Amino acid sequence: MAITLKQAREIIRVAFETGAAKGMNPLSVVVLDAGGNLQAFERSDGAAPGRFDIARGKAYGCVMLGIAGSAQMARAEAQAYFVAAAGGAFGGKMIPVPGGILVRDETGAVIGAVGVTGDSSDNDAIAGKAGIEAVGLTAEI
Amino acid sequence: MAITLKQAREIIRVAFETGAAKGMNPLSVVVLDAGGNLQAFERSDGAAPGRFDIARGKAYGCVMLGIAGSAQMARAEAQAYFVAAAGGAFGGKMIPVPGGILVRDETGAVIGAVGVTGDSSDNDAIAGKAGIEAVGLTAEI
Amino acid sequence: MAITLKQAREIIRVAFETGAAKGMNPLSVVVLDAGGNLQAFERSDGAAPGRFDIARGKAYGCVMLGIAGSAQMARAEAQAYFVAAAGGAFGGKMIPVPGGILVRDETGAVIGAVGVTGDSSDNDAIAGKAGIEAVGLTAEI
Amino acid sequence: MAITLKQAREIIRVAFETGAAKGMNPLSVVVLDAGGNLQAFERSDGAAPGRFDIARGKAYGCVMLGIAGSAQMARAEAQAYFVAAAGGAFGGKMIPVPGGILVRDETGAVIGAVGVTGDSSDNDAIAGKAGIEAVGLTAEI
Repeated sequence: MAITLKQAREIIRVAFETGAAKGMNPLSVVVLDAGGNLQAFERSDGAAPGRFDIARGKAYGCVMLGIAGSAQMARAEAQAYFVAAAGGAFGGKMIPVPGGILVRDETGAVIGAVGVTGDSSDNDAIAGKAGIEAVGLTAEI
Repeated sequence: MAITLKQAREIIRVAFETGAAKGMNPLSVVVLDAGGNLQAFERSDGAAPGRFDIARGKAYGCVMLGIAGSAQMARAEAQAYFVAAAGGAFGGKMIPVPGGILVRDETGAVIGAVGVTGDSSDNDAIAGKAGIEAVGLTAEI
Repeated sequence: MAITLKQAREIIRVAFETGAAKGMNPLSVVVLDAGGNLQAFERSDGAAPGRFDIARGKAYGCVMLGIAGSAQMARAEAQAYFVAAAGGAFGGKMIPVPGGILVRDETGAVIGAVGVTGDSSDNDAIAGKAGIEAVGLTAEI
Repeated sequence: MAITLKQAREIIRVAFETGAAKGMNPLSVVVLDAGGNLQAFERSDGAAPGRFDIARGKAYGCVMLGIAGSAQMARAEAQAYFVAAAGGAFGGKMIPVPGGILVRDETGAVIGAVGVTGDSSDNDAIAGKAGIEAVGLTAEI
């Protein structure tokens, strides 16, 4: 099973809507497939120009390691050099904080990841989770 | 003036619609802002996973050099080493063929670029141009 | 559907066996999944040390563009700068010659790619194709 | 003396078997030669797609510096910036934690390295050591 483009659009739409409803800063949201490749991305008007690399880095580390953003952050706090080294191994495409969210299907298989950036990391995760759940998939933040 | 996210979505939607109406392969479309930074991207279901790098490369060369895809191709045919060197200078993010399209506003200023990939380069350009014109902007292919 | 590790091992084993039976040089074989990520690799004793990057480059271009090695070579001969540019966009991981083989399942979907290197490009493709067909999958060379 | 492909396969097989017997997560195992070049790699079904870069990084730092994973980790804890800088010098291919294992022959010469990832770093090292010892070589974890 894979995230469809239609689902990816809906994930992004609901994440933006959630951010707006909660008064968050303008968000940017990326959807990666199960291989870490880019499926969809949108940057809100008013968001800073480099938000793509941050959003993708959050999602990329999740899907490539099979570990969600919160768990990556815990590892980074316990063992910063490991996470720095993993980032190097992934060509810099790893941002180990919340807002990187694993997407699982009903069997529990990882079918992609979502990366959200623009507000606090915890708020980013809330917005992304709302989007993922809106299309009937499971979010691991 | 800048391309808004609403316009970027419409550009992508119309490019996809144009490709479908003309029987093209599944397309992928990127919209970059005037600084070469990613604003929006969508990969059609069924397109190969690496299409983002190709789409972005087409658009990035356009906006960073102020030269559309067709003119880049002409330069590549006349002087391949220059285009190869420019690609090196841009970290590989330059694909010098049609499907990379400059976006201009009514004053003629470059406000971004669109990159389309998935079918022949000429068809890619046709689909992208349709999208850009659908939002009242000028496409230089 | 995905290539299993058991299938990947069998693909490599049969490719090596085919090479040996036909008197080819020592081969190296990589199997990538549908996202371009490494699943298995083996380098024969006596093969040169850099064979991994060549094998992966052959397979990576296939799966990321959805285009087999022979078609990439034709494109490279017609339009060398395009293929050079695509290689730059993929961080150098693209070797556009035969021996890069798309792997399709019975529905025609691309489920990965195999890269073979060590002998002539055409022989590399023959060995890889034998491996893929030995596990009941379809090889597009 | 060099690790043969037959030995590399056996190292991987026994590492996987050890992991399974001890209830570890699905493992991925790389074998590098004495020059740091890839000889063999296998990713278990169910392991995350990015495991190759982690496995190789563990083994690469070992063989290129002649220092096993545990000693690299001790150095990283004492002097994180050195390990970060070395990772930069090695193009990111250095993951300084257990699971990176030096392989020595009976004379004590380093003839390659093994990298294991998927479970805790300590468990990764146990599985890799079992594989190396199964082929009569010496593991320095």
